[in-house]
Amino acid sequence: MSLVYKSEKTITHYMCDRSRSLTLPMLVNLLLEVSEEQSSELSRDESYLKARGVNWIILRYEFSVSRMPNLKETINIETRASEYNKLFTYREFVVKDSSGKVLLTVDTTFALMDLSTRKMVRLTDEIVSPYQATASRRIRRSDKPKELTDFDDCKQRTFDVRYFDIDGNGHVNNAHYISWLLDSLPSDFLKSHEVSWGVIAFDKEVSEHQSIDSLSMRRKERGTATDHQIKSEAAVHCKASFTWKKLNKEEH
Amino acid sequence: MSLVYKSEKTITHYMCDRSRSLTLPMLVNLLLEVSEEQSSELSRDESYLKARGVNWIILRYEFSVSRMPNLKETINIETRASEYNKLFTYREFVVKDSSGKVLLTVDTTFALMDLSTRKMVRLTDEIVSPYQATASRRIRRSDKPKELTDFDDCKQRTFDVRYFDIDGNGHVNNAHYISWLLDSLPSDFLKSHEVSWGVIAFDKEVSEHQSIDSLSMRRKERGTATDHQIKSEAAVHCKASFTWKKLNKEEH
Repeated sequence: MSLVYKSEKTITHYMCDRSRSLTLPMLVNLLLEVSEEQSSELSRDESYLKARGVNWIILRYEFSVSRMPNLKETINIETRASEYNKLFTYREFVVKDSSGKVLLTVDTTFALMDLSTRKMVRLTDEIVSPYQATASRRIRRSDKPKELTDFDDCKQRTFDVRYFDIDGNGHVNNAHYISWLLDSLPSDFLKSHEVSWGVIAFDKEVSEHQSIDSLSMRRKERGTATDHQIKSEAAVHCKASFTWKKLNKEEH
Repeated sequence: MSLVYKSEKTITHYMCDRSRSLTLPMLVNLLLEVSEEQSSELSRDESYLKARGVNWIILRYEFSVSRMPNLKETINIETRASEYNKLFTYREFVVKDSSGKVLLTVDTTFALMDLSTRKMVRLTDEIVSPYQATASRRIRRSDKPKELTDFDDCKQRTFDVRYFDIDGNGHVNNAHYISWLLDSLPSDFLKSHEVSWGVIAFDKEVSEHQSIDSLSMRRKERGTATDHQIKSEAAVHCKASFTWKKLNKEEH
C-alpha cells in the first residue's frame, strides 16, 4: 500500500489572483513542494536523483476542483505515488480544507528524464521502492486534451520565455505553461469563471530564448469548456482542456 | 520602541532561479508575507484597511545583500516599522541564516492609498499606533536610483501585463516590476552575477492591458552597476539601480 504524505500550507497573497483565490500555477507549485517533501523524507530528494544523472519530469495533470482555496486559508495536502510501471509513476494529490472537506484532487503522471540526453529513462527499484507504490504493467489510458478543431477561430497570444521561467532542470517550469495556457483567454472570461476540471499534457520541453504561441478555443457544447495548445515554430509543446463554472463572487 | 516581528521561512523550488538561489521577486513576496503576518497579529491586516477604503502601497525598496538564501535553506525574517511621518512608514527587514548570520537587509517605504481615488492619503494613529514606531516630522532623504544617461545605449525589452500580474489592489504587484527590471539584462549577465545592492523607486501604477518597456544600462565606473527604468507611453512607472557581484558558482 502506498505511503501517504501529508502537509499543511497557508495561502498567502503572492499565491492568489485578484479575487483572492489560489491560482492554478501556484497550486501546482504547492503540490510539487509537498511531493518533494515526501521524497526528502524517504531520502529520494532531488540531490539524490541528480547524483544519478536524472530528475523527475511531469507529463500530465488532471484537476477536479470543487472550490479553490482562498487567501489566508490553511489547507491540508495529501499525496501518494499510487502505481508505477517501467516508465511512469502515477501520483495523486488530495487538497482538503481545515474541516477535512475535499476541495480538489489532482492526478499526475511523472517520468524520469536523463539530464544529459534530455530523454525519458526507465524507473529503477532503487528510486521507486521507498514510496511503496503498486507495481503494474498497465499503462493508464486517461482522458486526453481535445484537439483544436478550427485554428482560424482561436484566441492567440505570444509569450517570450523570461529569465526566471527557467528552473533547475534547465527548462521552463510547468507552472509557467499553465499561466500561458490561461492567459490566452480574455481577461473578462478569467475574472468571471473558475476551473472545475482540467487536463494538461506536456510533450516537448520549452527552453530559454524561445517564443511560443498560446492558442485557445471556447467550446459551446455541455456548459463552458476551452481547449488549448502551446506551440512554437518547431513543435506543439503542450495541450490542455478545461471546463469552467461561472463565478458569482464580485472582485473585492 | 518599534515592535519586532519574526518569522521562519523555508526556501522551496518555486522560489528559486536556475542556480537554486532565492530570486529577488520571491524575496519581496516573502518579506511582504511576513509584514502582513505582523499586521494580522496586531489586528491591522488587509481586511481592516479595506474596510476603511485604503491599503498599503510600497514606494521604495533598498536591498543590501551579502548572500541570497539557497534552496531548502530555512531563514529567519525580522521586521519592524521603525519610523513614520504624516505620509510614510519606514519598515526594515533583516534576513538571517539558521546560525543568526545576517544574509541581507531591506529598507522599505510604505504609504497608504485610497482605493477609490488611487491617491495617497495621510496615515492615521488608529492604523499606525499598534506597530509602536517612532513618530517623526522628518521625511527621509535616501539614495535614489540613478537616471539613465544615454537612451540610445539601452537594452530594452517590452512586456505586456499578464492576467496573473494583477493583485488584490487592482494593479501590477511589485514583484512583477522586479522581474521586468532584471529581465531586460542579458541572460548571460544574470547567470553570472548576483545583486549586492539595489534601490527601486515606484512612481505610477501599471494596470491591466498596459504594455511597458523595461530599459537598462550598464555603468562602467566602480565595479558593475546597472540603472533601470520602466516606461509606458504615458509615464515612467519605476526607476532602479543595482550593483552586482560576479558569481563563482556554476549552474548545477
